[in-house]
Amino acid sequence: MSLLSLFSRRGSAPVARERLQLIIAHERADNGRSDLVVTLREEILAVIAKHAAIERDKVSIKAEQREGVSTLDINIELPTIAVGMRKAA
Amino acid sequence: MSLLSLFSRRGSAPVARERLQLIIAHERADNGRSDLVVTLREEILAVIAKHAAIERDKVSIKAEQREGVSTLDINIELPTIAVGMRKAA
Repeated sequence: MSLLSLFSRRGSAPVARERLQLIIAHERADNGRSDLVVTLREEILAVIAKHAAIERDKVSIKAEQREGVSTLDINIELPTIAVGMRKAA
Repeated sequence: MSLLSLFSRRGSAPVARERLQLIIAHERADNGRSDLVVTLREEILAVIAKHAAIERDKVSIKAEQREGVSTLDINIELPTIAVGMRKAA
């Protein structure tokens, strides 16, 4: 699994960019609970959006399911502006 | 980094357990924005608590900072009961 590969791909020169990556993995038991990663996805994005401007086309989401484990890999490229400068919603 | 190591540690026998793991990584630019992983931590836990019973002693949180990247690794052991059976808050 290429976890956090985005971040390790940095070259030697520091670049003024911001990224947020979330990996959510849910190891399910067979107890009828719905898949938490699906449930949590939009709500967690909403939480992030309260604190940072998120453009939907700067969000990439990969979902994976195997052996009772659901994984969601959310990558968000954040605008590199100071928080105080962004418009209030 | 031992990402998702908890889940890959499964033996051969399936066990009825549920776990949720979140990895949040924030690659910061030097733009005065506060560290998002710290900001998001409690709010994301609150979102999860809306959908699954979380006992605080079943939550383990590891924080790491290196080269402009803050990482938070949250592991939650969930009670293996059906959602409908848990008490409303």
